[in-house]
Amino acid sequence: MRRHCHHGAMSYDPLNSLTRKEGRASADRSTLDALLDEVSVGVLSTVLDGMPWSVPMLFARDGDNVILHGSTGAGALRQVTEGAPAAFTVYSLDGYVVAYNAFESSANYRSAVLRGTLVHLSGDSAVTGLERLTDRLFPGRTGEVVPSTRKELAATVCLALPIREGSWLYRGRVGGSEPPEYDDATVPAAPVWTGIVPLRLTAGEPQRDEWNHDDVPIPESVRAIQRHYSR
Amino acid sequence: MRRHCHHGAMSYDPLNSLTRKEGRASADRSTLDALLDEVSVGVLSTVLDGMPWSVPMLFARDGDNVILHGSTGAGALRQVTEGAPAAFTVYSLDGYVVAYNAFESSANYRSAVLRGTLVHLSGDSAVTGLERLTDRLFPGRTGEVVPSTRKELAATVCLALPIREGSWLYRGRVGGSEPPEYDDATVPAAPVWTGIVPLRLTAGEPQRDEWNHDDVPIPESVRAIQRHYSR
Repeated sequence: MRRHCHHGAMSYDPLNSLTRKEGRASADRSTLDALLDEVSVGVLSTVLDGMPWSVPMLFARDGDNVILHGSTGAGALRQVTEGAPAAFTVYSLDGYVVAYNAFESSANYRSAVLRGTLVHLSGDSAVTGLERLTDRLFPGRTGEVVPSTRKELAATVCLALPIREGSWLYRGRVGGSEPPEYDDATVPAAPVWTGIVPLRLTAGEPQRDEWNHDDVPIPESVRAIQRHYSR
Repeated sequence: MRRHCHHGAMSYDPLNSLTRKEGRASADRSTLDALLDEVSVGVLSTVLDGMPWSVPMLFARDGDNVILHGSTGAGALRQVTEGAPAAFTVYSLDGYVVAYNAFESSANYRSAVLRGTLVHLSGDSAVTGLERLTDRLFPGRTGEVVPSTRKELAATVCLALPIREGSWLYRGRVGGSEPPEYDDATVPAAPVWTGIVPLRLTAGEPQRDEWNHDDVPIPESVRAIQRHYSR
């Protein structure tokens, strides 16, 4: 077999590979929820004038919904608030898989693409949704700060994306604890290190704003964020 | 002013807020390139049958292109290879902004949404593109492993998304070094800690596959990955 130039093909398979690659897909809801509860940014995608439209957004799961929010002044977000078909993509890059060749090298990852229709929350539903969003991202923060004003509420769009059947979840490889199956064309000329480089999002020390009073302690919400990223 | 329930509105503004919020947008190409060179996963979005279609993918910048790849067996990816309009979203969550109220609480982030038309690379262009992809993600790895086979190349789709004018870049707030402007409705009842909780993707110790020979040292590619995530 003729040898080509070196190249790489990390098996970061798109969603449709669900039926091709067994073992990477999981429809287990608790696994999905664990990912949604761990990660706090996803990419909201919809279609505007026939073109793909995407934006990264903070989010939080609240039961069977993903809660999103934005400014009422954001034009495109306003367009997608009512009944727009949406895909919401969440991923966690958990490490690099360094294999014996480029083709098998890959990433360890978990990801989910939720599909559904955005629901615009209003009134008490919006207030509750936004409160949940705050308290998932900044645990307990609503108990530490003043309530929001009517003006702030009016400036905020709150959206929910229901988590339904058909939401798809993918999981990356756990790693290369098994030796690869060599064939004639892929026998290394010399022994080559293979393994995993794990990656993790970690929190640094909280940095207090300069104008804080010296005697104000770090609040429980910030401690909770630190714990979240120390797991 | 009547007080509503606590709620939160992290100012994670969608793209259209470019014209609204000065200071968060940057069209500077070097800043964009720095983000694209730091982050290795983005979300590819397109439109299939009028519906939004998205998938997270490994990527690497190669000059004025973003290089993507996937399996030829992946149906939807094949559909988007030829001339499909695409949005490619890259973000880095750099920290939480813990403000004096929920409304001003936010995230520090950098993000870019590249818009363009996917180009299907073939022949030598695909080989070169895949090689660049490998050597951006696993620096120098193509020099450490055997070349790819024709079979492997045939199983791989290589795509390029040109980085053009109109690619948009956003930057999050640097933090709250200035005290907020209180108004009557938002004066805290008690002093409240505010500040930043920085976040960073960090690499752990490389984990060697069990079947490795004991005397094979950690290669330079893996050292380079460690350095990349130690910055």
